[in-house]
Amino acid sequence: MAKSSFEYVKKFELDDTLLPNTWIVVRLDGKCFHKFADDHNFKKPNDLRALKLMNYAAFSVMRDFSDLLMGFGQSDEYSFVFKKHCNLYKRRAAKLLTTVTSKFSTSYVYYWNKFLADQQLLYPPSFDGRIVLYPNEDTLIDYMKWRQADVHINNLYNTTFWTLVQEGKLSPTQAEKRLCGTVSADKNEILFKEFNINYNNELEIFKRGTLLLRMNINTDVSNKCSTVIVDVHDDMLKDSFWRDHKDLFTIKPNKMFIYNGPITEIIGAQLHDRKLLYISCYPKTLEKKH
Amino acid sequence: MAKSSFEYVKKFELDDTLLPNTWIVVRLDGKCFHKFADDHNFKKPNDLRALKLMNYAAFSVMRDFSDLLMGFGQSDEYSFVFKKHCNLYKRRAAKLLTTVTSKFSTSYVYYWNKFLADQQLLYPPSFDGRIVLYPNEDTLIDYMKWRQADVHINNLYNTTFWTLVQEGKLSPTQAEKRLCGTVSADKNEILFKEFNINYNNELEIFKRGTLLLRMNINTDVSNKCSTVIVDVHDDMLKDSFWRDHKDLFTIKPNKMFIYNGPITEIIGAQLHDRKLLYISCYPKTLEKKH
Amino acid sequence: MAKSSFEYVKKFELDDTLLPNTWIVVRLDGKCFHKFADDHNFKKPNDLRALKLMNYAAFSVMRDFSDLLMGFGQSDEYSFVFKKHCNLYKRRAAKLLTTVTSKFSTSYVYYWNKFLADQQLLYPPSFDGRIVLYPNEDTLIDYMKWRQADVHINNLYNTTFWTLVQEGKLSPTQAEKRLCGTVSADKNEILFKEFNINYNNELEIFKRGTLLLRMNINTDVSNKCSTVIVDVHDDMLKDSFWRDHKDLFTIKPNKMFIYNGPITEIIGAQLHDRKLLYISCYPKTLEKKH
Amino acid sequence: MAKSSFEYVKKFELDDTLLPNTWIVVRLDGKCFHKFADDHNFKKPNDLRALKLMNYAAFSVMRDFSDLLMGFGQSDEYSFVFKKHCNLYKRRAAKLLTTVTSKFSTSYVYYWNKFLADQQLLYPPSFDGRIVLYPNEDTLIDYMKWRQADVHINNLYNTTFWTLVQEGKLSPTQAEKRLCGTVSADKNEILFKEFNINYNNELEIFKRGTLLLRMNINTDVSNKCSTVIVDVHDDMLKDSFWRDHKDLFTIKPNKMFIYNGPITEIIGAQLHDRKLLYISCYPKTLEKKH
Repeated sequence: MAKSSFEYVKKFELDDTLLPNTWIVVRLDGKCFHKFADDHNFKKPNDLRALKLMNYAAFSVMRDFSDLLMGFGQSDEYSFVFKKHCNLYKRRAAKLLTTVTSKFSTSYVYYWNKFLADQQLLYPPSFDGRIVLYPNEDTLIDYMKWRQADVHINNLYNTTFWTLVQEGKLSPTQAEKRLCGTVSADKNEILFKEFNINYNNELEIFKRGTLLLRMNINTDVSNKCSTVIVDVHDDMLKDSFWRDHKDLFTIKPNKMFIYNGPITEIIGAQLHDRKLLYISCYPKTLEKKH
Repeated sequence: MAKSSFEYVKKFELDDTLLPNTWIVVRLDGKCFHKFADDHNFKKPNDLRALKLMNYAAFSVMRDFSDLLMGFGQSDEYSFVFKKHCNLYKRRAAKLLTTVTSKFSTSYVYYWNKFLADQQLLYPPSFDGRIVLYPNEDTLIDYMKWRQADVHINNLYNTTFWTLVQEGKLSPTQAEKRLCGTVSADKNEILFKEFNINYNNELEIFKRGTLLLRMNINTDVSNKCSTVIVDVHDDMLKDSFWRDHKDLFTIKPNKMFIYNGPITEIIGAQLHDRKLLYISCYPKTLEKKH
Repeated sequence: MAKSSFEYVKKFELDDTLLPNTWIVVRLDGKCFHKFADDHNFKKPNDLRALKLMNYAAFSVMRDFSDLLMGFGQSDEYSFVFKKHCNLYKRRAAKLLTTVTSKFSTSYVYYWNKFLADQQLLYPPSFDGRIVLYPNEDTLIDYMKWRQADVHINNLYNTTFWTLVQEGKLSPTQAEKRLCGTVSADKNEILFKEFNINYNNELEIFKRGTLLLRMNINTDVSNKCSTVIVDVHDDMLKDSFWRDHKDLFTIKPNKMFIYNGPITEIIGAQLHDRKLLYISCYPKTLEKKH
Repeated sequence: MAKSSFEYVKKFELDDTLLPNTWIVVRLDGKCFHKFADDHNFKKPNDLRALKLMNYAAFSVMRDFSDLLMGFGQSDEYSFVFKKHCNLYKRRAAKLLTTVTSKFSTSYVYYWNKFLADQQLLYPPSFDGRIVLYPNEDTLIDYMKWRQADVHINNLYNTTFWTLVQEGKLSPTQAEKRLCGTVSADKNEILFKEFNINYNNELEIFKRGTLLLRMNINTDVSNKCSTVIVDVHDDMLKDSFWRDHKDLFTIKPNKMFIYNGPITEIIGAQLHDRKLLYISCYPKTLEKKH
């Protein structure tokens, strides 16, 4: 049995190196998650536990891939952005795409009980992934804005739709008809006038999705900053966000940003792993250290 | 906030449709599985529980994708072969690659306790995947032979290596040196003469890996055959295997092969789901029904 | 001035190797050839001189690339088929595509005067090219049939259209209307009944396009066959053609086919170059030598 | 004969759209041009007529493709740069690559007699082409510098080599040995000390290659500028060149640059076509009009 006589089949594996010096985005989407959400009694329109599980799975990915600059998630989708000079796996598309997809997928199942302990996972879910290149910061920023604009549009619609159904006792078909042709202002008004709901008071995680970034955090270890992955809900549609974060693209991000927000599960897990205590001593606003 | 003004970024997603009328192979590999196996106390050189978990995860994939013709696994890798006329996801490479990778990955974690209940899963593992096209049966068959030849070569080496270490009390370095330059016959002789081990008596699953196929099985429901995914360990290096299975490539496979082997966990799970009993009434050899 | 500091830009050239073991087809099309034909007074619906120039340019390509198995041309397009095991330029797509395109293009201009000496070439024309893979003989044969079916459909239409215009004194718009909705039989009837033209008597080169193949030819040099590129107009839509030529795909083609037709410009040029005389001694039908 | 039954083969043509918003470079290289140059008695180390023919063929390409921003040529190679927002042929790679290759190729033959009238073209030459994407200005500029650095290195070597052979009466092998291991300064010294040749006095076209750009030119038609393709030999290795030309990338180039150099064949041809006279009235330095 000659090994080499079959080895030629390796030649059918074609090179899939990605164009250098471009931003690599991997976006994952839950497969048949409408059904999955129903099967697992996810709360409509948003299930906070399920969103936190998504975020934690994404955090698990970012912890593994130091070349990941940021992640952004909403509903059953997550985007990951690799640094433009990333040379991991020599930029081979399938390697990057599948290792991210796989780690996210296994983490989703592995951490299920951390967030949905009282709901049995009935079967293994799955996620599809795609890989997209953005050649410059402008197009990458527009990509991030596109995804966050999508959160807003979907969440306002879903919040109004499910309020009409759950509180307004409309059937789904009636709610759909009611919303047909409405713009944002109309939906805000329905919520406010008919149900006394101020959409602005909805949770940031619902309205804006979750952004994962690497930031510095002040800890008890004297004078030393720790870089951690933080989960925030900033408004990326504002240009000021990108002005404040423009160093994200140009220099080592973990040198730059001081985090001063609450200790989330994700941040807590990292401090715990490193046996660190968090000391908040910075003013509330996000600020850069020079 | 105009949705459409960012939508243009979708244009950066390029088409990755695969050449029609070719065999699509997706191969998965465990990432850092040497460490993962050590961390989880996998038995050397083969851990039957871990192999069965791999097979079960692969079965979980095949159950989801009816366009998958066969799967073949060994160690921490698994290959999946789509029918050449497969048009799932319009043959888009990333979709096919990631949904298979994701389903396999989540299944591996989900079914962990079914096979390794006494070993806690310490962290979510991950798998990388690649997609390769084979334009005709000959090259596809050589691909399958390549992977099975690889099982033989690796397993004979690993069996001898770990016997030298575990029973022969050699250090890994000494065992490696001892095996340097040896051919198959030499390793067989070491096993037999020094340790009284007849390599031929090793488990088929170790020597040949596992092939997943769709076959018909005789059940108690009168006159009706059920198609199930079976896990077998046939010798694909023999041309007779491909002669016997040549219909696999040309017609609907589930119309053709009668399975008459033992009821494995994989087969049992399917019968259980369908509330069927298995009645073996066929002679032991694999035969085609015309 | 350090050469190496800029060399990194070479890394942006990505690999474009074509899948091995597949038929590579390069198809060229004249760019804006409607205008080019008008500008150069090409006869409607077919200009024999222009078709011969196309064939000669294609012959010039086939002479250069021994891996080309056949060519097929009609109107302002030409297809070239590389052997499926072709490893020229390591199967890099751009190399194969551009060298064929370029050689065809320069030959078209270079040989212009050989066929259209009385018509000045007013400006350099151009051709676009594409490269398509066919994984097996069946799809490749269907490709060839597709192109020849196209010749038939277009030529019957064009012949009828231009007869209506040139002899029937219809305006182009009237001719178009007249033909709208007609099938082949209708067009044949118009030609025959109204203009006494039997479409079957049209030149084969018009009705079927031109196939370039390598065949053996009997010459005066004792007992020795010479392989030459021949231009024939066989009916590839008939299955018998592919039965007769099935060896084309499986063995060295130049070992197999004896040519017994007329000495065309293309064949004559090759005999002339090799200082050979042609002796016809075979019966008229195409036959294989065993 | 059903047309549609074969049409399915069109599906094997896969999409090859290029990433949007990136600079598309097409580079052509003469195939076997060492032999071609010998066969056609090109002067060593540089044949001005042959270089001018290359430039004219490139000009013929740029005249056809308004989306081409610049061209750069040396020896038997030419690079063409499409605007980054170019959407010609929907950015399909093969279309862009082959139409440029084909037009250049036919133009080379078509204009042969314009520059090498006393040398018969013995056979049609050919050029291969490749397509490369650069995601941003920095990498594109480095590409241009890379090609021009290459001119310098090659030309200094070739000039010294052929001077040693032609004037120094060394054999090619002896000249090669003599130059082995030398740096630029050594070659300059050989030329100057041994042959009294100041390399700086060599023609700019030899030392720097030719850059084709669109610029404005002052003509007799009152107050109106005409945009023409100009052939210049600027030093692109200097950063000042890119500072002066930075508008090339950001705005419509033909709005910006005033040309004030000599009327070359290329420029003359365009003025002639448009029946314009050139009036030079600008100071010698290149200047921007605001």
